[in-house]
Amino acid sequence: MAYCAEIIGVGTELLLGNTVNTDARDVSEGLSALGINVYYHTVVGDNPDRLRQAVEIARGRADILITTGGLGPTFDDLTKETLAQCFGKELIYHEEIGTEIRAYFEKRLPGQKMPENNLRQAYLPEGCTVFQNDWGTAPGCAFFAEDKHVLMLPGPPRECREMFNHCAVPYLKGLSDAEILSHNIHIFGMGESAVEDKLRGLMEGLTNPTLAPYAKTGEVMLRLTAKAESGEAAEAQMAPVLDQVRAVLGDVIYGVDTDSLEATVLGLLLDAGKTIAVAESCTGGLLTKRLTDIPGASGAFLGGVIAYANQVKTDLLGVDEALIEQLGAVSDPVARSMAQGVRIRLGTDFGIGITGVAGPGGGTEEKPVGTVYVAMATADQTYVRSLRLGNDRSRIRVMAAHHALDMVRRYLTGLPVEGSGQMR
Amino acid sequence: MAYCAEIIGVGTELLLGNTVNTDARDVSEGLSALGINVYYHTVVGDNPDRLRQAVEIARGRADILITTGGLGPTFDDLTKETLAQCFGKELIYHEEIGTEIRAYFEKRLPGQKMPENNLRQAYLPEGCTVFQNDWGTAPGCAFFAEDKHVLMLPGPPRECREMFNHCAVPYLKGLSDAEILSHNIHIFGMGESAVEDKLRGLMEGLTNPTLAPYAKTGEVMLRLTAKAESGEAAEAQMAPVLDQVRAVLGDVIYGVDTDSLEATVLGLLLDAGKTIAVAESCTGGLLTKRLTDIPGASGAFLGGVIAYANQVKTDLLGVDEALIEQLGAVSDPVARSMAQGVRIRLGTDFGIGITGVAGPGGGTEEKPVGTVYVAMATADQTYVRSLRLGNDRSRIRVMAAHHALDMVRRYLTGLPVEGSGQMR
Repeated sequence: MAYCAEIIGVGTELLLGNTVNTDARDVSEGLSALGINVYYHTVVGDNPDRLRQAVEIARGRADILITTGGLGPTFDDLTKETLAQCFGKELIYHEEIGTEIRAYFEKRLPGQKMPENNLRQAYLPEGCTVFQNDWGTAPGCAFFAEDKHVLMLPGPPRECREMFNHCAVPYLKGLSDAEILSHNIHIFGMGESAVEDKLRGLMEGLTNPTLAPYAKTGEVMLRLTAKAESGEAAEAQMAPVLDQVRAVLGDVIYGVDTDSLEATVLGLLLDAGKTIAVAESCTGGLLTKRLTDIPGASGAFLGGVIAYANQVKTDLLGVDEALIEQLGAVSDPVARSMAQGVRIRLGTDFGIGITGVAGPGGGTEEKPVGTVYVAMATADQTYVRSLRLGNDRSRIRVMAAHHALDMVRRYLTGLPVEGSGQMR
Repeated sequence: MAYCAEIIGVGTELLLGNTVNTDARDVSEGLSALGINVYYHTVVGDNPDRLRQAVEIARGRADILITTGGLGPTFDDLTKETLAQCFGKELIYHEEIGTEIRAYFEKRLPGQKMPENNLRQAYLPEGCTVFQNDWGTAPGCAFFAEDKHVLMLPGPPRECREMFNHCAVPYLKGLSDAEILSHNIHIFGMGESAVEDKLRGLMEGLTNPTLAPYAKTGEVMLRLTAKAESGEAAEAQMAPVLDQVRAVLGDVIYGVDTDSLEATVLGLLLDAGKTIAVAESCTGGLLTKRLTDIPGASGAFLGGVIAYANQVKTDLLGVDEALIEQLGAVSDPVARSMAQGVRIRLGTDFGIGITGVAGPGGGTEEKPVGTVYVAMATADQTYVRSLRLGNDRSRIRVMAAHHALDMVRRYLTGLPVEGSGQMR
């Protein structure tokens, strides 16, 4: 039997438009990977009457109710009280949680007196499974009552995500004899509709495992999910499909179960013992920001030059002034010179140079907004992709950084580097 | 009478966790500014039965129903059909919309035959107000039936946002004789709870205008909203409250109705005809990325050096090697030297230097994760803030960039520059 879940987000800030409901997205994505259907999301404010009404509606149409938010220490955090009441449960003080909350405070704010209302968080429904919160103070919980499974997760996105993965997923897996496993296949260099076109026949024929595409800026992710008696059996079901996907899509797959293109590239650089430096004009630090988002980036990334003004291109990167005058700062040779310049000055194995027109101003007939040159220099050679990336400033910048990373990835995995140069 | 609205998001991709429901956030924020209460959000998939059930529930508890999504040309776009049916309306072919859709296609894909299913978008409920879509093809609409106002907006976030602002807002304003206006007051340098503490007395006494706080990483925004017979009257109601807020909070207010701290600083630089360069270590390009997110940044931002490795600090910024050896790369004098170095090398009025331990690795007892020095150099002087920013890598980086921007803002507005140095 396939379970059906409803997610109830609790928090007035969601109804005011102060925050976006990423918890519902994260929990939905996780439930989807577990093969649990989600038919409705509901959001209510910090209002016990309206929360009760939402719970009454949800219990009539779902087997599993998952709440996010309203578990904190203040008087308007009423999720536990309300859900316990709806399902005829008492709230019980959990001594060991009280002790943990006191210890957490003592560690974070040594010497300060903890406001007593924090101990409200140690009250949980009788007989529940406690979800320990290692990422904050409010614990979550799960219980089974009146034929429904009720799970409560905290609202702050990181706490919600971690506790879903570490506490709710094991609980939900325990509801079923089946093991459900997923692999995420990450793609850059082919658009979503092209990926779907190429895989349509394969996807339509599949029921277990399933294969579903997810798109984000310039990238596509495919999620392969199998349900079987054991993890090994699930893997065995997925293996031939993964092989087929690889055979069809080829080298636009940059990783399976990886975090991001930048994490993939950083891993490849670290494995190869190679270093990189970056010279950015139109992306203005976006590429270095993405590389340094990753803990441990310093093992391969040494630094960069943000050469927004032409003077910086010549002074700090050694780009020939005449080159800029003759061909313009947005040109193939300037991109190459930036890549070489930063590589030599920082003494790295790879140098990246990015120059382009991100807009909205600065476009010309010859070089309209979206014209970008991305160069990668090694000690032996320099490669360039000449791109037209549309007219959305934010997207142009993200795509230019994607292309730079893709060039390094392709080089380090022995693929043609300029290959994906024509795609947007 | 205060209206009450419910937002119904339609789209299976939301239930699968493929996308996050930013439409609900954007529409909620807009409704809040109009003084319209929102008590529930609901999300359903592309399933007419479940959408009908959601509409039946919503009409029992709201005066205004706003749907987002499901207006497109494909067979699973069923919002109009379902809503029309729920409220006893026929769908009518709108000739002029059909013509527009044809023209839109001809312009975007000249010479290509338009798939006929696109004309499904020209069918709208009888007697409705058409919301023309200047940002895509699917028009929206609004009608009044059975004592409810029903508004339908497209799902793609940009189309939803623009059509809400340009079509739904005028429609909703027409429901009331009152004018509703808002001002957004942006704050850096004081935490949310401190802002609330200081303004509690003022906020509690207010009914019109209202004043509500919104928090995001390291910043607080206050929204002041007034309802009156005319725009002038609304402004007159808000003016004394805005003065009181300014009097209470003082110079932590960095702008009213501005886009962001970086946009504010860029505006100040452009107004003053001053230029800036940035040297970043632990923030790794985040600050330059934020500055160059803004169109026209090149008028004041010349460039920067991302000095992740110490060698780059010495080679490209001229930081004294001995200084790094004696005091460590994460130190007050190194931050100063980075700021001065980048200012001199790029020939700008201002130089920023940021060095710190973003973690998770690299912390010591003396300089734990979160230790950051942010320096600002001018031709005459160098200022430093010595910070402890917690232990979340991403937050540490955002806060360090905030502080750098705040220092420039304070300098350019004649305030003490190191003033907010102790806050997190």
